[in-house]
Amino acid sequence: MTHKVLLLPGDGIGPEIAAQAARLLKACQEAGLDIDIEEALVGGSAYDVHGEPLPAETLEKAKAASAILLGAVGGPKWDKIDDLSKRPEKGLLGLRKNLGLFGNLRPAMLYPQLASASSLKPELVAGLDIMIVRELTGGIYFGQPRGIEERNGERVGFNTYIYSESEIERIGRVAFEMAQKRGGRLCSVDKANVLEVTILWREVMERLAPEYPDVELSHMYVDNAAMQLVRAPKQFDVVVTGNMFGDILSDAAAMLTGSIGMLPSASLNESGQGMYEPCHGSAPDIAGQNIANPLAMMLSVAMMLRYSLNETAMAERIEAAVGCVLDDGLRTADIASEGTRRVSTVEMGDAVLAAF
Amino acid sequence: MTHKVLLLPGDGIGPEIAAQAARLLKACQEAGLDIDIEEALVGGSAYDVHGEPLPAETLEKAKAASAILLGAVGGPKWDKIDDLSKRPEKGLLGLRKNLGLFGNLRPAMLYPQLASASSLKPELVAGLDIMIVRELTGGIYFGQPRGIEERNGERVGFNTYIYSESEIERIGRVAFEMAQKRGGRLCSVDKANVLEVTILWREVMERLAPEYPDVELSHMYVDNAAMQLVRAPKQFDVVVTGNMFGDILSDAAAMLTGSIGMLPSASLNESGQGMYEPCHGSAPDIAGQNIANPLAMMLSVAMMLRYSLNETAMAERIEAAVGCVLDDGLRTADIASEGTRRVSTVEMGDAVLAAF
Ligand SMILES: CC(C)[C@H](C(=O)O)[C@@H](O)C(=O)O
Ligand SMILES: CC(C)[C@H](C(=O)O)[C@@H](O)C(=O)O
Repeated sequence: MTHKVLLLPGDGIGPEIAAQAARLLKACQEAGLDIDIEEALVGGSAYDVHGEPLPAETLEKAKAASAILLGAVGGPKWDKIDDLSKRPEKGLLGLRKNLGLFGNLRPAMLYPQLASASSLKPELVAGLDIMIVRELTGGIYFGQPRGIEERNGERVGFNTYIYSESEIERIGRVAFEMAQKRGGRLCSVDKANVLEVTILWREVMERLAPEYPDVELSHMYVDNAAMQLVRAPKQFDVVVTGNMFGDILSDAAAMLTGSIGMLPSASLNESGQGMYEPCHGSAPDIAGQNIANPLAMMLSVAMMLRYSLNETAMAERIEAAVGCVLDDGLRTADIASEGTRRVSTVEMGDAVLAAF
Repeated sequence: MTHKVLLLPGDGIGPEIAAQAARLLKACQEAGLDIDIEEALVGGSAYDVHGEPLPAETLEKAKAASAILLGAVGGPKWDKIDDLSKRPEKGLLGLRKNLGLFGNLRPAMLYPQLASASSLKPELVAGLDIMIVRELTGGIYFGQPRGIEERNGERVGFNTYIYSESEIERIGRVAFEMAQKRGGRLCSVDKANVLEVTILWREVMERLAPEYPDVELSHMYVDNAAMQLVRAPKQFDVVVTGNMFGDILSDAAAMLTGSIGMLPSASLNESGQGMYEPCHGSAPDIAGQNIANPLAMMLSVAMMLRYSLNETAMAERIEAAVGCVLDDGLRTADIASEGTRRVSTVEMGDAVLAAF
């Protein structure tokens, strides 16, 4: 069966890194992978053409695809759009919500070749390998009511942080299963000493625990989790948390590696359909200069092969190719260090393809 | 005029470190400071005696005081209390709310003597000096409606993240004024690409900016702020943010120094009345062992002298005494390193008093 893969380059450095992913997809096709590749607009670049960050046509194509590869969205060019519903980010949030991509997997792992890139002392991050499981279609990102309105003679802004038991259970199961496949430890992050919504969160996690006797469940308050990530990140195996805390903690965790330009992520729905994207953003400051690191995007292809297309062998080939290129000392600017060879976005793509 | 100072030892290591603060307060009295010192119960220790984390008597004393010194609250002993309103944390939250202590100042600075304690590479944190201004009586901590209830056949948990213009303006002014007294740079942290409440936040900060032409205002999304704190913390001077983001970011920032046992904090209301407490928590795992670091608590006394009692000279004497003790190589367990002398809580108190 031919899988449909939808490529959404997006904004900023998105198109440059997506171009390298497209080359890699073609190489996979030549190596026997049965896929159809389509492209569509999302984010600011879609807004510029269609006046919408998520045009109906893009959403239709996304729904029809087995997997979506997204570059990145957003940039200062669109920050002044007053109507929040037209901002590039809403393209991304709309895809997540409409496709039900509730399970966001954000690995933070340190490539041994890049150990010196971390801002932490080497002994604290050597071998770092954390998987953050973030709930992605609920919580305060989507909670109602929300808005800005007049009350008692002044304006107030408000959002609602809300989770139902079934939403918590669903992401909890993803996290428990992930912990089973990994080191068997799951840390659920909440603020149950202050927020009722996370009291329910903690309760549901506790209720699930007996079904996964091989997983050791612990709980941590979000402020402490932020501290522990900085102090001793290797204490974590799998972390599960809500949409907002997950946004913050996964970025902090990714940055611990010093090489956020290396990290892919997956967003999955109940049927295994997924959207894959780099953890880094659209980096408008370096867009169009052929210096962005395409590896997170190329590794997103590997993650897609593994999680949505069940092509583990081909995923491993890509990961091995990236390992080779790093071993050879090739580095884009963001991960450059003394004694390594500085390459452009396209040159990095060339090297991975050559090693594939 | 005689100032009333209320000492609230609290739970865990609270009583041990508060004892050292009490000795320091007496030394200040002997040095001419005109204060009355009272003590009261709060948190779990108040719950154990009165069944309430914030007994009426404690609240009355707090209202009558010019300044409050709090140790810490909470611990596993009280985690099983089902009624959230009886948990130790509610003692702290109740004090903040009832006294209107909306302005939380959380410095994260690195003592040069303790540079090696940081988990970050020395060059990234040398000279680190950030002031996080956190809104403390609003936002999702206190927003209504909140709770856990049945909807569509299952339970949902919900909290409300809400700010009014006047609340934002009030904390904004504290932050702008702080930036004026410091390096002139203010970074406001929000999630304005997703949350309406923080769109209003950003708008109010922008509106205030022209009144402080000597302050350079910037904005950062909270996920990026968490990353930037890990990557290059010295880029920050003053940071202003809401209650929840401030909780997370201030703990991460404090931990960057590697010596959270050194950091005091202040929570102020409109009339300059303040509550002063260490940034660290109640550390129940080391309570009662005479090994906790009393310096954050003793430096909280200095912060109180500066912000609520206008006794700058005496504050500087305390800070200088702490500097001396560190220069002499005395260290409690949390900040110990090779070639320094390990001391107990009481010995550290002795040393500061001797140097005072
Ligand atoms: C762009 C933004 C809406 C998004 C989020 O907050 O989820 C991004 O930060 C992410 O983490 O994918
Ligand atoms: C104990 C807890 C309620 C409190 C908070 O979340 O504000 C603490 O973490 C703090 O930062 O002072």
